[in-house]
Amino acid sequence: MEVSDAFQPLSSFQSVPIILASGSPRRQQLFRELGLDFQVFVKPNIDESFPSQLKGAEIPRYLAAEKAKHYTDELLQGNFLITADTIVWHQGSVVEKPANREEAIAMLSRLSGTVHEVFTGVCCRYKQQTKSFEAQTEVSFKALSLNEIVYYVDRYQPFDKAGGYGIQEWIGYVAVEWIKGSYFNVMGLPIHALYELMSNWDFSNS
Amino acid sequence: MEVSDAFQPLSSFQSVPIILASGSPRRQQLFRELGLDFQVFVKPNIDESFPSQLKGAEIPRYLAAEKAKHYTDELLQGNFLITADTIVWHQGSVVEKPANREEAIAMLSRLSGTVHEVFTGVCCRYKQQTKSFEAQTEVSFKALSLNEIVYYVDRYQPFDKAGGYGIQEWIGYVAVEWIKGSYFNVMGLPIHALYELMSNWDFSNS
Repeated sequence: MEVSDAFQPLSSFQSVPIILASGSPRRQQLFRELGLDFQVFVKPNIDESFPSQLKGAEIPRYLAAEKAKHYTDELLQGNFLITADTIVWHQGSVVEKPANREEAIAMLSRLSGTVHEVFTGVCCRYKQQTKSFEAQTEVSFKALSLNEIVYYVDRYQPFDKAGGYGIQEWIGYVAVEWIKGSYFNVMGLPIHALYELMSNWDFSNS
Repeated sequence: MEVSDAFQPLSSFQSVPIILASGSPRRQQLFRELGLDFQVFVKPNIDESFPSQLKGAEIPRYLAAEKAKHYTDELLQGNFLITADTIVWHQGSVVEKPANREEAIAMLSRLSGTVHEVFTGVCCRYKQQTKSFEAQTEVSFKALSLNEIVYYVDRYQPFDKAGGYGIQEWIGYVAVEWIKGSYFNVMGLPIHALYELMSNWDFSNS
């Protein structure tokens, strides 16, 4: 069998320092699965508003690219930059992060018994090259009782999460009937697609 | 809001001891997410053969029910029993657990670049009541290089896993393009459906 003993996935990144520009612990955990060294560095106060005419996947694609623009070449110093943004999209509009307990309860009541979409935009930048992509996953929630919703919100405080839930928490175990797409995309990073993009990165162009 | 402060999911099981009859650490981990006390007890030497005319989901449904039959009432002593079986189904036949490195490499080469199905059958038994169900998830693998397959097999030794892979391991992060169905079913236990069945269990009939 023609197999190289020395094969190491993404070995071209062994000499390229990586910055994951996301404060999300889920994204950091997922990226860690690739086995690469990386640093987390998040520029503070990046505006996360977007033009109101954008729809669905266009929004996180736009926001991931906008975030990437805030890192100057001087700041990056030859690092490979990864930015990402995830939104929950339900019946034609964005479901944001809940500001408080009541908003979280209202959001989950809205998602209960319906299908929503999770879109993540990812932008990678290295020297003069920038590439981005987005991923889409449909998620079907069973009809949740109000008791179940309140139990989850009070126990997990999902205020930092788009749509007011984390699929890797209790509600993801009991309420998600099916998904279509990448599970890790729902967690915030479509890691298979990022692996693919990084595997094919052409450093000879840099 | 009419919410009971005392709400506890699956509270009717607080006085019912549970036996999860599975040696799979993944199933135990998933079941733990429901927050219930349980014991793991696996009767040794249960025959896992099945009639050759069975197809797809019928196989794990049959095997989960067969496993349940091996636990006598005397053995159960009023415990709630859960048995499960998971198979990988690809182009009309079962992909078993690989016996060795070469079989694991061959299996993953077969699954590479195609869609397969994961079926789990679950059987629950309490006193004179037995209920069972099965779950189905489609899984799409990207075309894997032989280097990637060998890297995974040598690093993760997936010999205890149906189909020769664990979706929660490196290969699940980089190779799974999409799934349709429950992610946790692919890990071995469709936990949302088990939660639903347990939530609706009628103990007044026992």
